[in-house]
Parts: sequence; C-alpha cells; structure tokens
Amino acid sequence: MSVLDIRPARLTDLPAIVAMLADDPLGAERESPDDLSPYTAAFERLAADPHQHLVVALRHGRVVGTLQLTIVPGLSRRGSTRSIIEGVRIHADERGSGLGTQLIEWAVAESRRQNCRLVQLTSDASRTDAHRFYERLGFAASHVGFKMAL
Amino acid sequence: MSVLDIRPARLTDLPAIVAMLADDPLGAERESPDDLSPYTAAFERLAADPHQHLVVALRHGRVVGTLQLTIVPGLSRRGSTRSIIEGVRIHADERGSGLGTQLIEWAVAESRRQNCRLVQLTSDASRTDAHRFYERLGFAASHVGFKMAL
Repeated sequence: MSVLDIRPARLTDLPAIVAMLADDPLGAERESPDDLSPYTAAFERLAADPHQHLVVALRHGRVVGTLQLTIVPGLSRRGSTRSIIEGVRIHADERGSGLGTQLIEWAVAESRRQNCRLVQLTSDASRTDAHRFYERLGFAASHVGFKMAL
Repeated sequence: MSVLDIRPARLTDLPAIVAMLADDPLGAERESPDDLSPYTAAFERLAADPHQHLVVALRHGRVVGTLQLTIVPGLSRRGSTRSIIEGVRIHADERGSGLGTQLIEWAVAESRRQNCRLVQLTSDASRTDAHRFYERLGFAASHVGFKMAL
C-alpha cells in the first residue's frame, strides 16, 4: 500500500469520518450520517479545545481512518499528564492493512511529544478482536471501564 | 455527619489532596507526598484548562475527598460530549460515610449541567469494592480499560 498521511481533521473531512463512525456494529445504531448538523457543532467544540486532537489518515487523498486524542493533565502519579484515545475507526477497505497500528503508533508518539506518562483507552467488552490488537501494541487490559448514559 | 461542601480545589488544598492520593494501596507506590513540586506544576496545568474540574469535598473546613472531572467533546454518538472521572479519593476517616456517593453524584450532576450525554471512568481491575460501588450508582461495566505507561 502507498504511503499514508496523518493530519488534523478538517471540516470537509466530516462526511467521511461520520460514514466510518456509522459503518460499525455498535455505531450503526448510534449515528445519523444523513444529518451532519450535530457533528458539525461537535467539530467546532473539538477545534476550539487545544487539548483535543482529531486526526484523519489519508491514502491517495481519501480519508481511510480517524481517531481522537485528548490530553488530560492530572495530579495522580506525581502530577502525570495522560492521553486518552477515543473514536478509532478504520475504513472497511483498509482493515488488515496495518493502518490501525499506524494510527495508534501516531497517537502514542504524539502523547510522548506532549510529555504524557500514560496513554489509555477503553474498548467495548464485545470488541474482542480490538482487545487482542491493543495488547499486541503493548497496552495492558488492567482496568474495568464504566459508563453511564445521561 | 455534618453538611458537606464541594468546591473547586485551590493550591492550598494540594498537600491534603496528595496525602489522599498516597494513602491508597496503588497510590502508595506511585506518589511522592514529601515533594509537592510536580503536583504544583500539574495543578497549574489543570487550572489553565477550562475543561478540567478538580474539586475537593470539605467537612468542617477539612479536605476529605477529591475527584477530577474532564469534559471531552467528540464526534461519535451524534457529536456527544462526554465526561471522564479520574482521581477519586476519599479520606480514610470518611470511608463508608456516603461521601463517595455524594462526590460521584456531584460529578454526574455537573456533567448533565455541561450537556454531557455520557459519564465514564476506569477502575483498576483489583479494586473490586469500587466496581460494586460504581454499579450501585448506575454505571455499567461495559468496557475494558487499556493503559500503556510511556
């Protein structure tokens, strides 16, 4: 496969990103790719927060992957800053291409560059393939992730 | 017990907060309460980020609990903003007093006030009492939490 470009997401990338969010066993129920207005408002909130890094991966100029990296300062672990990875999505055509690895490696490198001491993420308990993927990349499944919808 | 006050943490609360972080089976190995300088630097990073809410709970003017709430915008779930709870600590004298419940209820109410659609947190797999506590409060243990130290 050709060289990949990873760069900050732009508003014009939004249809492609939302299509990837929706093309997912869990996302299919949660997303509304035919109505981009809530995503546009969220994109503006992300763009206004310097601790948010929403990126896309492009191959031949086409958006084929995305993730969101959040930088979170904190007191614990001697005042360590950590990063949180959310919203990892890979286009169906690219699964198995190594793109997921490249995106996560980008996130880990960017976290180091921003002096984070810890990178963390949660993965739905049903995504067992994703769990093996993260463990292969060096993550430890050390925590239980709790969520409450409001 | 007397009425509890929950308010934003101040720099003068830092020794009491760090003492609570260190007085914990996992925190004992990770924290350095005799050297506050890394915590002071982290406090300044937290204070500079409007999406971070580090709070303390006080009883009779004494710091007896703390948590950190982070507001995270995002694209998934139709552009939902979520909140993340980190660094929940309750003073040893207060365990079983209901203070943990009051702190988490504060965080949930603040998350609603800030239009979050989801509140999430991770808890070390070894903290089984904490897991029951969060489930009683309405959280679902739906995810696996992955971490990588840098």
